[in-house]
Amino acid sequence: MGFACIDHHRHIRCGLPEVIYCPGKTTEQIIKIFEKLAEKGGNVLATRAEENVFKALAKKFPKARYEKLARAIVLEQKKITMSKRAIPIVTAGTADLPVAEEARVTAEIMGQRTELICDVGVAGLHRLLGHLERLQDANVIIVVAGMEGALASVVGGLVDCPVIAVPTSVGTGASFGGVAALLTMLNSCAAGVTVANIDNGFSAGVTAGLINKKVEARCKL
Amino acid sequence: MGFACIDHHRHIRCGLPEVIYCPGKTTEQIIKIFEKLAEKGGNVLATRAEENVFKALAKKFPKARYEKLARAIVLEQKKITMSKRAIPIVTAGTADLPVAEEARVTAEIMGQRTELICDVGVAGLHRLLGHLERLQDANVIIVVAGMEGALASVVGGLVDCPVIAVPTSVGTGASFGGVAALLTMLNSCAAGVTVANIDNGFSAGVTAGLINKKVEARCKL
Amino acid sequence: MGFACIDHHRHIRCGLPEVIYCPGKTTEQIIKIFEKLAEKGGNVLATRAEENVFKALAKKFPKARYEKLARAIVLEQKKITMSKRAIPIVTAGTADLPVAEEARVTAEIMGQRTELICDVGVAGLHRLLGHLERLQDANVIIVVAGMEGALASVVGGLVDCPVIAVPTSVGTGASFGGVAALLTMLNSCAAGVTVANIDNGFSAGVTAGLINKKVEARCKL
Amino acid sequence: MGFACIDHHRHIRCGLPEVIYCPGKTTEQIIKIFEKLAEKGGNVLATRAEENVFKALAKKFPKARYEKLARAIVLEQKKITMSKRAIPIVTAGTADLPVAEEARVTAEIMGQRTELICDVGVAGLHRLLGHLERLQDANVIIVVAGMEGALASVVGGLVDCPVIAVPTSVGTGASFGGVAALLTMLNSCAAGVTVANIDNGFSAGVTAGLINKKVEARCKL
Amino acid sequence: MGFACIDHHRHIRCGLPEVIYCPGKTTEQIIKIFEKLAEKGGNVLATRAEENVFKALAKKFPKARYEKLARAIVLEQKKITMSKRAIPIVTAGTADLPVAEEARVTAEIMGQRTELICDVGVAGLHRLLGHLERLQDANVIIVVAGMEGALASVVGGLVDCPVIAVPTSVGTGASFGGVAALLTMLNSCAAGVTVANIDNGFSAGVTAGLINKKVEARCKL
Amino acid sequence: MGFACIDHHRHIRCGLPEVIYCPGKTTEQIIKIFEKLAEKGGNVLATRAEENVFKALAKKFPKARYEKLARAIVLEQKKITMSKRAIPIVTAGTADLPVAEEARVTAEIMGQRTELICDVGVAGLHRLLGHLERLQDANVIIVVAGMEGALASVVGGLVDCPVIAVPTSVGTGASFGGVAALLTMLNSCAAGVTVANIDNGFSAGVTAGLINKKVEARCKL
Amino acid sequence: MGFACIDHHRHIRCGLPEVIYCPGKTTEQIIKIFEKLAEKGGNVLATRAEENVFKALAKKFPKARYEKLARAIVLEQKKITMSKRAIPIVTAGTADLPVAEEARVTAEIMGQRTELICDVGVAGLHRLLGHLERLQDANVIIVVAGMEGALASVVGGLVDCPVIAVPTSVGTGASFGGVAALLTMLNSCAAGVTVANIDNGFSAGVTAGLINKKVEARCKL
Amino acid sequence: MGFACIDHHRHIRCGLPEVIYCPGKTTEQIIKIFEKLAEKGGNVLATRAEENVFKALAKKFPKARYEKLARAIVLEQKKITMSKRAIPIVTAGTADLPVAEEARVTAEIMGQRTELICDVGVAGLHRLLGHLERLQDANVIIVVAGMEGALASVVGGLVDCPVIAVPTSVGTGASFGGVAALLTMLNSCAAGVTVANIDNGFSAGVTAGLINKKVEARCKL
Repeated sequence: MGFACIDHHRHIRCGLPEVIYCPGKTTEQIIKIFEKLAEKGGNVLATRAEENVFKALAKKFPKARYEKLARAIVLEQKKITMSKRAIPIVTAGTADLPVAEEARVTAEIMGQRTELICDVGVAGLHRLLGHLERLQDANVIIVVAGMEGALASVVGGLVDCPVIAVPTSVGTGASFGGVAALLTMLNSCAAGVTVANIDNGFSAGVTAGLINKKVEARCKL
Repeated sequence: MGFACIDHHRHIRCGLPEVIYCPGKTTEQIIKIFEKLAEKGGNVLATRAEENVFKALAKKFPKARYEKLARAIVLEQKKITMSKRAIPIVTAGTADLPVAEEARVTAEIMGQRTELICDVGVAGLHRLLGHLERLQDANVIIVVAGMEGALASVVGGLVDCPVIAVPTSVGTGASFGGVAALLTMLNSCAAGVTVANIDNGFSAGVTAGLINKKVEARCKL
Repeated sequence: MGFACIDHHRHIRCGLPEVIYCPGKTTEQIIKIFEKLAEKGGNVLATRAEENVFKALAKKFPKARYEKLARAIVLEQKKITMSKRAIPIVTAGTADLPVAEEARVTAEIMGQRTELICDVGVAGLHRLLGHLERLQDANVIIVVAGMEGALASVVGGLVDCPVIAVPTSVGTGASFGGVAALLTMLNSCAAGVTVANIDNGFSAGVTAGLINKKVEARCKL
Repeated sequence: MGFACIDHHRHIRCGLPEVIYCPGKTTEQIIKIFEKLAEKGGNVLATRAEENVFKALAKKFPKARYEKLARAIVLEQKKITMSKRAIPIVTAGTADLPVAEEARVTAEIMGQRTELICDVGVAGLHRLLGHLERLQDANVIIVVAGMEGALASVVGGLVDCPVIAVPTSVGTGASFGGVAALLTMLNSCAAGVTVANIDNGFSAGVTAGLINKKVEARCKL
Repeated sequence: MGFACIDHHRHIRCGLPEVIYCPGKTTEQIIKIFEKLAEKGGNVLATRAEENVFKALAKKFPKARYEKLARAIVLEQKKITMSKRAIPIVTAGTADLPVAEEARVTAEIMGQRTELICDVGVAGLHRLLGHLERLQDANVIIVVAGMEGALASVVGGLVDCPVIAVPTSVGTGASFGGVAALLTMLNSCAAGVTVANIDNGFSAGVTAGLINKKVEARCKL
Repeated sequence: MGFACIDHHRHIRCGLPEVIYCPGKTTEQIIKIFEKLAEKGGNVLATRAEENVFKALAKKFPKARYEKLARAIVLEQKKITMSKRAIPIVTAGTADLPVAEEARVTAEIMGQRTELICDVGVAGLHRLLGHLERLQDANVIIVVAGMEGALASVVGGLVDCPVIAVPTSVGTGASFGGVAALLTMLNSCAAGVTVANIDNGFSAGVTAGLINKKVEARCKL
Repeated sequence: MGFACIDHHRHIRCGLPEVIYCPGKTTEQIIKIFEKLAEKGGNVLATRAEENVFKALAKKFPKARYEKLARAIVLEQKKITMSKRAIPIVTAGTADLPVAEEARVTAEIMGQRTELICDVGVAGLHRLLGHLERLQDANVIIVVAGMEGALASVVGGLVDCPVIAVPTSVGTGASFGGVAALLTMLNSCAAGVTVANIDNGFSAGVTAGLINKKVEARCKL
Repeated sequence: MGFACIDHHRHIRCGLPEVIYCPGKTTEQIIKIFEKLAEKGGNVLATRAEENVFKALAKKFPKARYEKLARAIVLEQKKITMSKRAIPIVTAGTADLPVAEEARVTAEIMGQRTELICDVGVAGLHRLLGHLERLQDANVIIVVAGMEGALASVVGGLVDCPVIAVPTSVGTGASFGGVAALLTMLNSCAAGVTVANIDNGFSAGVTAGLINKKVEARCKL
C-alpha cells in the first residue's frame, strides 16, 4: 500500500487481534488499512480513533461499533469465545475510565472476560478492600491510576498474581502528564508489578490477555 | 564573623531552635558558629554533621551528644518541657530511618514529643492499620517514605489532621534520588498532605513542631 | 454508580467537605456524583469546574453558586460556623489570584475564615512588610506564588507558624509551568514551609483549614 | 524490632519468598531481619547485598550462599520443586548479566526454572534468531537490556507470551543511567511488553515467576 | 531587508539548496525572502510551510508546487540532474511519513534520488528483512522512527554504510514528543548511526544528500 | 485595588519604567492598573499584551500605541531623552524578532537608543562579521537567539563589553521550547555572557538599559 | 602546542585576564599553557585548580599564590590599578563562599575592587537590609545563592543597577545540584537580574568587572 | 562463551573492526572475548579500557598497545592501508581531547587517516578560521565539543561535507554532563550536522570512517 505494510502473520505469531493505532494516520489511510485487515474475515480493532473516523468507516463497515469512552472501533466478524476467569480492571478514579475501557475492549476482542472495579483509590481504602476476594481470585489484574498512582502498590501487596499497572495522565501540576504515576508504579515496593506506558490501556489489555490466555490454554494441553 | 551572620532573633521570631546546617561549611566555621549560637545559653542543633565534626566539637562542648542515625549534634543547655501529645513519625521502610530520626531530633529540641512507627509501607497494609488509633489521635503526622512514597496518601486518607510528607532518596533506578517519591506525595489524592524537600527530616520536624506547638499553645491562652 | 464510588465517610474520617474534582469527568458524571453527595444535606464543593458544568448543575441545584475566579461550585445546605482566627492567603502577583481563590473557597466551606493579601511579591518588599502584624498573628499562612516563588521563603522567615506554599503555573519560559516555583519552595531556607502541588489551592485550603481547626478545636476540649 | 516490621504473611498472601532488600540497612539490621525471616524454616533471599554483609551473615548461617554476580544471599532451608517449563532470561550484552542473574536467583528460589540467553542484542539479529524456538515455547520471557534497550521490542514481536522488560543502567552519556532503555521499553511498538524498574532483576524475576507459577498451578486444579 | 539577511553564498559554500524555514516568520516575510532567493534563477525550498502560505506564494510563483505531506514548497527553476544511486528512506510506521517526506523532498532538490520503504518497524522483522538487499547496496540510509525508535539500531546492524536516524514525535505518554526515540537512537549499540533532531527530515535529507553527493562527485574527479 | 498593589516607588528605587506584565490578568485588571500607573503623568509600558487588550485600553488612552511584533503597549506622557550610545540588539534569525522587539521597546522607554542587527546566525559567519565595528563600540550588547543559541558565544568572543543573552523558544523537537538555547548560553565558553529567561526581551532590555544608563550617568557626575 | 591553541589576543579584544580553566586538563598541560600565557609578562589566572596543580606550578612560578577557597592560582606580574567603586558580592549562606571567592579573585585580577557581604539569605531579611546603602551605591552587584536562590530577586528589587545572579550547587534533594536556584534566578520577578551558570563565579566576576570598568572607563574619555 | 556471543560476521557485514566495549565487563571476560576476536588474525580494538585491563591483556598479547588518552587497546595483526584523504577531528578545547582521541584510534584501525585540530572553540574564531582550507577539502569532519558545543554549527556553516558532532561531558553546572552540548548540536542551524552520543568518539570515528571509505571505495569501482 506504500504507506503501510500489513503484518497479518502477527495475529498468529503473537496471539494478537488485528489492530490499527490511529494517531498520525489520515482517515483515508485508516480505512484502507482497516479493509486490508478485515478482508480475511477476522476481528479488527482500531484504537485511539476519533469519532469522525468511525463515522467515515461505518459507511463501509456497518457492523463496526464505536466504543466511545475507549475511543476504539471494533469489528466482530468472528464469534469470540470468552475466557472462564475474568481479568479485574481496577481504577483509582472516575477520570481513569477511558484508559480502563481501552484495556477492556482490547482484552475482550482477545476473548478475555473482564470486570471493572472503578474509583477505589487509596485515599479511601475500604472501597478497595470490599473487592478483595475478586482480586485474590484473579490470574492477573490491571490497575489504572493517575495522580500519584499509589493504587498499584496497594493492590500488589494484597494478591499473588501479576499486576499490570497503567499510569494515566489524569492529574495536574506536578503529575506532569502521567510521569508522577509512572514513576510511582516503576518504584512499587510490592513485587509482581510491571508497568505499561502512560494511558496505554491497549498494551495492558494485551499483556493481561496473553497471561490469562496462557493460563487457560496450557490447562487444556 | 565574615563568613556567617548570626540571626539570634530568629529563635524568637520563628519559634525555632538555634540551628546550623553543616554541609558546605568547614569544621572551623561550624565550631565558630556553634560557639556563637551557644553563648546565650540556649539549646543548639547542628544537622547533617559528619562524625568527625562532632568529635572536634565535643572537645569544646563535652555536653553535646551525637545522634548517629540522624547525623545531628545536640547541645541541651536548657531543660526542655515536652508537649502533651506526641507527633507520630511513620516510615515506609527501615532505610527511611535516618530521615525519620532527623525529624525526631528536631521536633524534640523544640519540645515536641514524638513516637516512631517504622517499616509499615503499603505493600503490607495490615502493618499500618495496626497503628490506626495512634494516628487518628494526633494533631499532625510526619510520613517518611522513599521508593514510590505511597504511604503518605494512604495515611492521609485515614486521618483528620495535616500530614507532613517527606520523600526520601531510598530507592534505585527510576526513583531518581527521591524524585519519584516527591512527585507521588505532591500528587497525593488525599487532601491535607503537604510536602517537604527530599530527605529533609529537619524541615518536617520543624513544621510538625510548629503545628503541635500552636495547638497546645493557643489552648493555654 | 459504576463510574464512581462515593466515600461519604471521608467527611467524618478526615474532616473534609464533600468534594468533587471535576477534570476528566463528564458533565453527566459530575451531576450524578453531586446529587449523591448532596442528598445527605451537607455542603458540597466541586473544584476546577467549567462554567458550563455549573450552568447544567444549577438547573437542579438553584442554590448552588459559582465562584468564577476559583472555578468552583459551592452548595451550602448547612450553615457554616466560621473560625475565630482568619487564615491569611498571600499572593505574589495578581495572576496568582485564581489559585488563592480556590484555597479561600475551600477553607471557607470548612468553616475557616480567610483574609487575602494580594500582589506583595519580593521585588517590592515594603508591600509585604506592611502586613507583618497580621501575618505574625496567624495560626497558619498560605503563600501562593508563581515565577520564582521566593515569597514563601521570605514569609517563612518572618513568622512562627507553618507556611503552606503553593507554587503556581504563572510565568513563562524557564518557569516550566510552575516547576521553578515548586523547586524554590521545596528548597526554602526558611524552616516551617511545606509545599502543595502546582496550582493546588484546594490542597492548601484543606491543609491550612485542618491546622486552624485543630488549634481552635483542641482549645474547646 | 523497632526498625523493621516483619510481614511473614506476605509469603502466603503474595506467593513471594521471604526477602530482604539490603540497601540503606546496616549490617546489624540485615542480620536481625534475616534471622527473623529464617526462624520459620523457609527459604530466605537478601538482594543487593555487599560481599561483607554476606561474610558477616555466613557466620550465623553457614548454609547461606553468595551469588556474586547477582549480589544476592540465598538460604535454602526447604527443598524447592522446580517448574516444568523454564523462563528464558535474555540479555542484550554481557554487561547486563548482573541484572539477569538477580532475576534468575529470584525466580529459582520461587521454584521456577530459568535459561539464560546472553549477549544477543539487536545489532546482530542472527544471534537472537538462533534461539527463536526456545523463546516461542515459553510462558513468559524476561528481556534485560541497557543502552537503547531495543531488544524487548524485537523479542515481543516474535512471541505470543508476555515479555517482562528490564532496562539496565548499562550505557554512557545520553543513556542517563538506564532512562533511555526504560523509555524505549515503555514505548515498545510490540504489544505484550511491560516494564520493571531500571536494573530491577528482582521484580522481573518475581513477576515472571508468578506468571509461570499461575500457568502450571491452574493446570493442576 | 531588515528582518532577514540572505546568505546566497551558502548555496555554493555548503552545497545546499536555497532554503527558508517557515515557522516564526510572517507570510509577508516568507514571500519576500522567497523572492530574494528565487531572483538568481536557482531552485528554492520552503520547509514547514502551512498550506495558506503556499496559496499566497503561488500567486507570484505559479510554478511552485506544494508537497502536502512534507509541508514543503518547492520551486524548480533549474533542471536537476539526479544521482545514480538512491538513498533509502525507511520508516517504522505510517505516521512517520511526513518526516520521511520532508527528507525525500530535500534530498531530491539536491539532486539525490530516494526510495521510500515504509512501515517496517521492528515488531514485525520480516517486513524489514524483505528489503535487505536494497539497504545493503546504499551509500547512506535514512531511518525515520517514533515511539521507541529501535529501527535505527536494527538497520545499522545489517549494513556497512552510515545511517542517519531521525526520531519522530509519533507516540504517546512516555514518548515525550520524540525524546524516547531520540535517546534510543543516540544510544544505538549499532555503530555508524548518527542522529538528527526530532522530526527533522530536512536535516537528514541534507546530510544524506551531502554524503551521497560526495561519493558520486569524488568518483568523477 | 484588592487584586494589585502598585509599587510607584520602584520607578525611582530601581530606575525602571512603570510596567505591567499582562499574562494572567483580566483586561479589566490591566486597565485599572494602567490607569493607576499613568495617573502620575509618567510613561507606562504593558508587556505581552494581546491586541484586544490594546483596543480596550486605547479608548481611555488614545495616545497609547501598540507595538505589534513586541506585543507591547506604550504610553509616552513625558518626553524621553535618548542615550548617546546605542545598544545593539542582535538576532540569530528572523523568527527571533518579537523577542528582540520587546527588548527594543523596553530599552527605548528607559531612554536608551538601540540598533537592530537581524538574522546573523552562526551558520553564515560573514553576516555577523560585517557588523563587527558597531559591536565593538557598544557598552553592552543584547543577543537574541533560539535553536542552538550559539550566537551569544561567538559575539561574546569578539567584544569587551557584557553580553546579555536571551534564548528564544524558536526551534522544534529537542529545542524544548528554548531550553537548548538557554543551556547553550549558560555554558558559554565566552566570558562576559549572562542570561535572561527564555523569550524575556523585557528583562534583557531593562538590564542592558541599566548598564548603558550607569555608564552615561556616572560620566556626568 | 598540539593540545591547546593560545589566544593572547583575547586579552586585548575582550578585556579579560589571561585565564586557564583547569578541569579536564592534565597537570602537564596546565603548566605548559600557564608558561605560554605568562611569558608576555602579564597576569595569569588559573581557575578550578586542585591544590596539587598549584604545588607543581609553584616550583616554576614561586610568585604565584593559591586562593584556597576559590580554588584559583593567581600570578601577578604586573601591578594592578584598582577601580574606585567596589563591586558588592553578596552570598545567601556560608556555603556559597567558594563561588563568591572565585568571583572576587576574578574581578580583582581585572582591577576591580570588591566587597563581600556574606550569609544574608532571605530567611532573615534584616541581615540584608543592614547593607542597603552599600548596595544602592554600586554600579553592579553579584548575588551568589544556592538552595532556593531567592536572594537575587530581593536584591534586584532594592537597587537600580544590574544584578549578576550566580546559582550555586549548595543544597540537597530537590535543589538538583543548583538547578532550583538557577530556575529561581531565571524567573526573577525583579527586572535587571541576569544569570550565570551554576557555581560560575568566574563568569560573574568577569561580567561584573566588564560593567564596572565600562562605567569608569567611559568617564575618563 | 555463556556471557558473550561473538559476532565475527559483523566485521564483514558492517565494515567495522572487531571491537570490545569494556565497561561492565570483568577483566576475565574482556580477555576471553579479546582472544576470541583475535584468533582469526584480524585487528582488534577494545574501547574504554582501564589501564589495569591493558596490563592484564598485554601478558597474552605483547603486541597490543595502549592509547592512554583514548583509553583504548589496539592490536594490529594485519597491516592497515590508509585512506588518501584525512578526516579532520576538530575540538573546541583541550579537555575534549580524550574523546577526539577515541575517534582517531577508531578511524585509524578502519584504515582512515585523521588530522587533529585542537582547541579552536568559538570564543576565538580566528583560531578556527586559520584551518579553513583543510576543513573545506574534507569528505567528512568530526567536531568534538563540550560546554555549549557551538563549534559544530560554526564548522557546519563553513563546509559542504557532513559534520559528525560529538558532544562531550566537559563543562560544569548546567552543562549537565554533556546534555547542553548535545542539545546545541541537535538544534544546529547549520544543515549537514548529525550527532553522536555524549563522549562517544568511537561512534563518530566509525561513522566518519564509513563515509570516507564509501567515497574512496566507490571511486575504485
